[in-house]
Amino acid sequence: MDDITKTAFLNRPDLHVGTEGEFAGWRTWSRDNFETNNGPFWHRMEDDGRIRSAFRVEKKHLNGGGNVHGGCFMSFADYCLFATASPVLQGPGVTVSFACEFIDAVREGELIEGFAEITRAGGSLIFLRGQLTAGERTLFTFSGTIKRVKRKAAPQPNA
Amino acid sequence: MDDITKTAFLNRPDLHVGTEGEFAGWRTWSRDNFETNNGPFWHRMEDDGRIRSAFRVEKKHLNGGGNVHGGCFMSFADYCLFATASPVLQGPGVTVSFACEFIDAVREGELIEGFAEITRAGGSLIFLRGQLTAGERTLFTFSGTIKRVKRKAAPQPNA
Repeated sequence: MDDITKTAFLNRPDLHVGTEGEFAGWRTWSRDNFETNNGPFWHRMEDDGRIRSAFRVEKKHLNGGGNVHGGCFMSFADYCLFATASPVLQGPGVTVSFACEFIDAVREGELIEGFAEITRAGGSLIFLRGQLTAGERTLFTFSGTIKRVKRKAAPQPNA
Repeated sequence: MDDITKTAFLNRPDLHVGTEGEFAGWRTWSRDNFETNNGPFWHRMEDDGRIRSAFRVEKKHLNGGGNVHGGCFMSFADYCLFATASPVLQGPGVTVSFACEFIDAVREGELIEGFAEITRAGGSLIFLRGQLTAGERTLFTFSGTIKRVKRKAAPQPNA
């Protein structure tokens, strides 16, 4: 991973770094109401350049059966897509498609980790796939596509 | 829709009926922490037997760009799957797969509605597909599969 890419990873303006607890030193984004309400979800860059995402399961993540809700898995996986793509995205993007399989259940107190890989980073679309795990157990597999959103040019005063 | 199916629609033990505001008379489920934290999401049966699901967009549903978060779309779509399947599910179930496309953005204050249809209800799996709309705009299309969860038989005292 080159310096330009590392710099892009660090530069999103609402980046927040955890200062206490098990996620001290991990990063999250603070400007996203939905993620703040459901998280915080966290990510960090490992020494090999891979992005690890994680959160600890609380009561608010559970469905009526006492397992993590499917919508929570999908929301965290969407976070993993953007955490993983952020070094190459270098600007705003939106998810345009997503698909997943629910493989195993997970309970309150467990640590859920997510890893994704970029299948292809094109000029317009970034394709990714990944999985969520708890310890040795695979919980959830997913793939998703992010579309880069071009910033509109400011109107010219004499145009 | 026959009387047995209608009865099944009404009988989930944590069913809660709204008593005030725009969702008075609509139904939701109260035992699901994740949905309570993100909703409430609501559903009701129309005269033709179709299940309409809906929620009003609040600040907590938004991403950093001020649009409804992708995870929120997916969580509400998962709710639509179960609301739509509930008359034939008649017991517990889990989502085993889900796929979706993000078609348009939606802002705070708008009403999001969801309709799904059962493609096939088998003995083990229920296949569905649907869409989310805001007024005349299609926001999101999805498909999902629910697996019926068999209740384990109580152990026999002399077994």
